[in-house]
Amino acid sequence: MNAFETLAAFYETQREAELPCSATDVMRLCLLDWLIVSRAAKGDAVAESALAYAAGQGEASLFFGGGASARMAALANGTVSHALDYDDTHFAHIGHVSTVVIPAALAMGEARGASFETILRAALMGAEAATRFGVWLGREHYQIGYHQTATAGAIGAALAASVAAGHRDVRAALSNACGFAAGLKAQFGTGMKPVNAGMAAANGVEAVLMAEAGLAGSETVFEAFAATHHGLKDTAAWDEIGEAWLFEAVTHKFYPCCHGTHAMIEALRDALQRMPSSERTLERITVRTHPRWMSVCNKPSVKDALEAKFSYRALAALLVQTGGAAVDEAGLQSLFPMRESTGALMASVEVIADEAVSEEASRVTLEAGGASAQAEHDLRAPMSFEARLEKLLAKGEGVLPKGEAARYWDVVQSADVTALLSLITE
Amino acid sequence: MNAFETLAAFYETQREAELPCSATDVMRLCLLDWLIVSRAAKGDAVAESALAYAAGQGEASLFFGGGASARMAALANGTVSHALDYDDTHFAHIGHVSTVVIPAALAMGEARGASFETILRAALMGAEAATRFGVWLGREHYQIGYHQTATAGAIGAALAASVAAGHRDVRAALSNACGFAAGLKAQFGTGMKPVNAGMAAANGVEAVLMAEAGLAGSETVFEAFAATHHGLKDTAAWDEIGEAWLFEAVTHKFYPCCHGTHAMIEALRDALQRMPSSERTLERITVRTHPRWMSVCNKPSVKDALEAKFSYRALAALLVQTGGAAVDEAGLQSLFPMRESTGALMASVEVIADEAVSEEASRVTLEAGGASAQAEHDLRAPMSFEARLEKLLAKGEGVLPKGEAARYWDVVQSADVTALLSLITE
Repeated sequence: MNAFETLAAFYETQREAELPCSATDVMRLCLLDWLIVSRAAKGDAVAESALAYAAGQGEASLFFGGGASARMAALANGTVSHALDYDDTHFAHIGHVSTVVIPAALAMGEARGASFETILRAALMGAEAATRFGVWLGREHYQIGYHQTATAGAIGAALAASVAAGHRDVRAALSNACGFAAGLKAQFGTGMKPVNAGMAAANGVEAVLMAEAGLAGSETVFEAFAATHHGLKDTAAWDEIGEAWLFEAVTHKFYPCCHGTHAMIEALRDALQRMPSSERTLERITVRTHPRWMSVCNKPSVKDALEAKFSYRALAALLVQTGGAAVDEAGLQSLFPMRESTGALMASVEVIADEAVSEEASRVTLEAGGASAQAEHDLRAPMSFEARLEKLLAKGEGVLPKGEAARYWDVVQSADVTALLSLITE
Repeated sequence: MNAFETLAAFYETQREAELPCSATDVMRLCLLDWLIVSRAAKGDAVAESALAYAAGQGEASLFFGGGASARMAALANGTVSHALDYDDTHFAHIGHVSTVVIPAALAMGEARGASFETILRAALMGAEAATRFGVWLGREHYQIGYHQTATAGAIGAALAASVAAGHRDVRAALSNACGFAAGLKAQFGTGMKPVNAGMAAANGVEAVLMAEAGLAGSETVFEAFAATHHGLKDTAAWDEIGEAWLFEAVTHKFYPCCHGTHAMIEALRDALQRMPSSERTLERITVRTHPRWMSVCNKPSVKDALEAKFSYRALAALLVQTGGAAVDEAGLQSLFPMRESTGALMASVEVIADEAVSEEASRVTLEAGGASAQAEHDLRAPMSFEARLEKLLAKGEGVLPKGEAARYWDVVQSADVTALLSLITE
């Protein structure tokens, strides 16, 4: 079966099947995280612009109040949830997932009166489709300049919106969405980066609405998309689809900085705990990372907190200064204006590009007074549900008023769609 | 100046400049043609589906009645005007032009209370931008599978919508539209082909609306678009922009069949007039055409009127049988069920792929009883305003009730925006 047939068959067999507990649990955590990063974006200029653009009349709720058509709600809410760039990432897919599929599932689900369970299923199936379509497209698609979050995301969003709308068939929606899918990395650093995520959600919703109106594209469009968009068509992307859930390997950001620094942060926090406390003054910090990150997160000098988010050295200095506390905005701000001691700490950090370290991992060595400590962290390492939840709640405490994240988790656990929508609009 | 700066400068200098009469006259003819092919699509399944999808509340008119938001009106009206695939084509750009830029100009113009002159200027400047952006992308973009009507069209639509909205600056709108631009030839033969045109118009309108909301992409996105979308970046595309109007070379379809057959039809009609009337029985018809058309319009056998639209042989037989009358739907239908004499005529046609014949030309030779007649036609050959108008009015007579096309032309000449909108909604 080709890619199109495979996803259509996945849809047909899984639409009413029992879903695996573990993947569904991960989607619940993603929903919690999505609520945290979206509600933390209140007041963000791009988020507010998108909401103002979308606000109108319609059957779907917008963050922080008001309504819009399902397409416009998906567009605006998807933009809101990516505005802080603090949402989840799938490294195999090379894309942000929940920020596209949850808004599509929710907007269409609300418009059609779907249950919480249906919306959760829609988001999960859409996330799996986006992830696998992203793997199918492969690295070259991303490397040459496509924003996979948006391109593969539109396919996931169409699948999610189809589930949420209760359709038996997804074929027309998949073809339509593939024809609409767009998004370039050239927009990074502008308001259009979050809009790419929102537009992918909107494209998925519109693909379904047009299919309902009787408009259907060709079933050969996936192949044409790969041929035109530098897709590798990696057939391994479809291995065990419906049995294994690749989406489960999604990673959450627990710190508000570039995802490429997160493995280093975890490894350094571990290494600091292993260093004898008598050794107060570190002489050298060695960070090994995959070469792909050197152009992204290895800024040699930094002038503000934003640049520090892309600097191994600045983040390492902050971690040493705080004794390994979780990185947060206040900590990043505290680095500036930069003190001499911070500069000295940064100078003691050596960053080494090492092909032997995986893209999602980092290895850190500390040396002080003859003693040394080492730790390694791989973001792909399994994390228990409880550990993920604890870290997400702590993340929420960092960006929202006290107790908010725990309240959001109660709503997710309640499986009450009315409570969920109230939370979004409040 | 790079492509982005060039189009931004074109916008700034031409937005209020006096436009050349000849190009404006061509746009008036395009508006007439656009009204003819759109209103002739009433009842077409794809057109009606798009209108039903878009219908809602809003400040912009839909064909055949009702209103919608500016974006939705652009989407639906653009789909309607491409539904019959009978709208204008620019061979240098390799795309349909008016079907994208007029709906964008009109929807935004109506929403903002623009004058007829402003809407016409918007459509013309948008058409020039789409044409030149298409030339800049080049042939490979189209050959590999992108539907240039939609991709370059979105840039033209954004520029058109900016003029219609009266904006001083087009930069954010151009960047946003380039990020949204999509459309694949794989959708040909499905309802998504016309939707590609409508979506390009909608993308242009949405790009402007988002810019108004404060959302702006990167000004490097044109370069990234070319790098990712197999664009050749032919800098000759920008030669004499603002002085020469490439759009003027747009061609109208005067017959309801593949545009690749039109040069042959004109040449054969001429050749038939040159053949002595005493020679009733043609022994051989030789058609020379550019090789690129052989895979498109050289169907060796045909089973119905739709296939006949892509068959040099069937069209030649029809022309001989009617003594060179204009090809129309009734004539195409009259070929079926196929008579023996028609089959014999088709068998007497030899189609020769000839690199020496340009893509827009054809050379036809007739032989009978020792006599012969030859004629050549190039669709790029200049045609007077009056000749174009006459042919368009005749085209209108073929697809609409008697007198309708002449009435549309009166509306175009009246330069009355209210009359234009009434005509669309009636």
